[in-house]
Amino acid sequence: MNDDASQAQDRNQDHDHDRNQDHRTANDGSLSRRSVLRTTAGAAGVAGAGLGLGTLGSGTASAADRPPAGAGSPASTPARRGATMAGVPFGRRSTVRVGIVGLGNRGGSMIDLFLAVTGVRVVAVCDPVRAKAERAAAKVTAAGRPAPAVYTKGEDDYENLCKRGDIDFVYVATPWDFHFEMAKTAMLNGKHVGVECPVALRLDQLWELVDLSERTRRHCMQLENLLHGAGAYNHDLRGLMFDPDYYEGPWRRLWHTRLRGDLYPNHGFGPVANYMDINRGDRAVSITSVGSPSLGLAEYREKHMPAGDPSWKETYIESDRTISLVQTAKGRVIRLEHDVSTPHPYSRINSLGGTKGVFEDYPARIYLEPDHTDDQWGDFSAYADFDHWLWKEHADPPGGHGGMDYMLVFRLMQCMRLGLAPDFDVYDAATWTAPVPLSHLSVKAKGAPQQIPDFTRGEWEKSRPGMDSERPAE
Amino acid sequence: MNDDASQAQDRNQDHDHDRNQDHRTANDGSLSRRSVLRTTAGAAGVAGAGLGLGTLGSGTASAADRPPAGAGSPASTPARRGATMAGVPFGRRSTVRVGIVGLGNRGGSMIDLFLAVTGVRVVAVCDPVRAKAERAAAKVTAAGRPAPAVYTKGEDDYENLCKRGDIDFVYVATPWDFHFEMAKTAMLNGKHVGVECPVALRLDQLWELVDLSERTRRHCMQLENLLHGAGAYNHDLRGLMFDPDYYEGPWRRLWHTRLRGDLYPNHGFGPVANYMDINRGDRAVSITSVGSPSLGLAEYREKHMPAGDPSWKETYIESDRTISLVQTAKGRVIRLEHDVSTPHPYSRINSLGGTKGVFEDYPARIYLEPDHTDDQWGDFSAYADFDHWLWKEHADPPGGHGGMDYMLVFRLMQCMRLGLAPDFDVYDAATWTAPVPLSHLSVKAKGAPQQIPDFTRGEWEKSRPGMDSERPAE
Repeated sequence: MNDDASQAQDRNQDHDHDRNQDHRTANDGSLSRRSVLRTTAGAAGVAGAGLGLGTLGSGTASAADRPPAGAGSPASTPARRGATMAGVPFGRRSTVRVGIVGLGNRGGSMIDLFLAVTGVRVVAVCDPVRAKAERAAAKVTAAGRPAPAVYTKGEDDYENLCKRGDIDFVYVATPWDFHFEMAKTAMLNGKHVGVECPVALRLDQLWELVDLSERTRRHCMQLENLLHGAGAYNHDLRGLMFDPDYYEGPWRRLWHTRLRGDLYPNHGFGPVANYMDINRGDRAVSITSVGSPSLGLAEYREKHMPAGDPSWKETYIESDRTISLVQTAKGRVIRLEHDVSTPHPYSRINSLGGTKGVFEDYPARIYLEPDHTDDQWGDFSAYADFDHWLWKEHADPPGGHGGMDYMLVFRLMQCMRLGLAPDFDVYDAATWTAPVPLSHLSVKAKGAPQQIPDFTRGEWEKSRPGMDSERPAE
Repeated sequence: MNDDASQAQDRNQDHDHDRNQDHRTANDGSLSRRSVLRTTAGAAGVAGAGLGLGTLGSGTASAADRPPAGAGSPASTPARRGATMAGVPFGRRSTVRVGIVGLGNRGGSMIDLFLAVTGVRVVAVCDPVRAKAERAAAKVTAAGRPAPAVYTKGEDDYENLCKRGDIDFVYVATPWDFHFEMAKTAMLNGKHVGVECPVALRLDQLWELVDLSERTRRHCMQLENLLHGAGAYNHDLRGLMFDPDYYEGPWRRLWHTRLRGDLYPNHGFGPVANYMDINRGDRAVSITSVGSPSLGLAEYREKHMPAGDPSWKETYIESDRTISLVQTAKGRVIRLEHDVSTPHPYSRINSLGGTKGVFEDYPARIYLEPDHTDDQWGDFSAYADFDHWLWKEHADPPGGHGGMDYMLVFRLMQCMRLGLAPDFDVYDAATWTAPVPLSHLSVKAKGAPQQIPDFTRGEWEKSRPGMDSERPAE
């Protein structure tokens, strides 16, 4: 296809560029990107039709209510169509060329961090809201860099950004509804892709991203707090969800009319999964979830929203508080919580316990033998020696979320420049996101455990570096 | 029977003494207390054999591993054999005559509180360890009261205490293994009984206590933190469990060789159940539990116990951390945790959240609209106006556990003197304890939810006072 041809021509850097990766995918004759990518709206499914993912079933808007295909016993794992991407290094490159899709609250601030990391060039930006895209472009030129290409022609213009031949990495920071199709389009166009969480909201979509990553030899990563993580997403978002200006449309609130489970597991699950070497020696096997009644948003609307506001047509079913218990192959337990619709102090819990002691966050505190024996939490800052080398090297990082965002961008760009394997990959993205559909099913089934697919198809048993990767020599 | 006859003669107080209660139980001809009470050891079952509790199945030492009879659908609830005890008042009495069984760590300090409450007389004490019983008796005389009868002749001597005609209330503070049979013996001898938690460790035993309470018209109460409660029992007990002197024999540690679930749910479940009007308008319907591996005790033994110590013969299976999710008929969620075998600060969590805010303990803190909107916990002491009248009247109560023990004794004795219904009853005792066998089953079934029996047989739908009872006029 033309795009891939032009892309190949544009590859003008290191010989070793993206070794282990082939570009047959879009040339295999069976695919029309447009036909598989067009979708009607929101959660509606692109589905595996035409991708040869026969065992995955076709997606429909109500797929979350059916036992998800591929979510059953390990025997139902679909056959692999490409070699594993676990541990596959990036091609080495002196400059990482980045395209950004979605320049709202998240993308509009993350661009600052891409601009702050050396060896990175922001080549193109895309947002259907012209003002947001242009504000981002102005940031690039204000930083003394060449003006990026700007894509603002409607909701499909990101496809044109993905077709460019001078982009190595696409960063997606759009409403959840678009994550899946954008990740897919990026990979089909030969780009590595990083997606804000959740990477998709259905199990068949998660399997499709795994297969696409393996077939296109492109990494697909959930962009997630890099080092210091979570156990929950307990964050009172009522005000923001009813704010007509904060989100572009009420997309986030509308998810509360569709699903009952943990809509946003990643901030809780990702870090704990890293602590526990999930997909690198252990595996998340099952999840059981229960949810409280759904009262918070309706009560907030009653108090704050004028009669006639469009929100009055909405019926909220999302549990105010979802609690999930994930069990691992080694028998360990991960508790996840989600609550964005009642008043409470912000917390991701971020707890890790073992036979030697326990750590818990909000605020950070520790209890570790033999230092602590008096039932009183200890001061965590006394253990700063154990900090990750990234945090030691970047004492006061710029950007939001306490510097985590910068760390994320820096480390990913570093892996791409130096040709290292990424610290997390498509298997992690799929695993961390699987609680979205599975917790919904479990809540509906009054807590019946749901099997979490082994997206690695057995590779999880091999230990390999992840967040604990050693500092590379530049 | 003679005991009951002598008992009737000894009733020399108020006419209204224990109205609604009859004494047919021990006279119905089918019962031999000794035959049903003798048990071989530890957890082994006394069972319902001979009590006509046909649907309950007979107990065996391994009963916890089988789906417990009576734990299935509401349809399997055994037929009631006596009228409900929900809301049944005590007979009014000017003095409450108490017998105490078990004068170890717990009973030996609780006796101080019985002696501190006016209108209470400690009539008899019982412990197979003579020194403990005699030390308790000395406390009674030191308080200027008549010397109590002392029962120290072996493990069955508590039966003789229960047979006395001058006792209204038996308090049981023995190892868990004996709770069930002692509660039963007390009721069969016409005594109200308060038992330290857990009141029993098997579902059939819980049903049997419910039936006995209804048939004997005697209240059977789990003695539980009266007002300010819990959500967990996270308490590092490794040192005490391996201490040869703290517990009389290693009985508590041995439970870690038998069950895998939440061995001690009451301190967490009881208070939250009270907040949520469980059995008084709502009902605990199901429980799903997962447990971590069992490593803590073995690791502690490795480090601290000499070769040849009897503990080296033990194999620990109890999960170091059990997390359970209880769902209620109204769709609310109660999370319970149990961890007594790893290092961590003591916590019962004790959290309660709703659409207006959230409270959490350890330390006590609150976040309540409209006072708190900044994601920072607020100071709970500012809300002291909402304190229970008992806490306001007893500003600096004596005894352990922050005054809760005194409150418990004072309030129970008050209810008995004034002829009020107790704040909690046999249904609460059975419900709060049901997680012991059910969490074990759920952990073994990898988190499959287990139905919690409706011990009230439908009475839960009626709202009635519990911990929120109003202050009575003395």
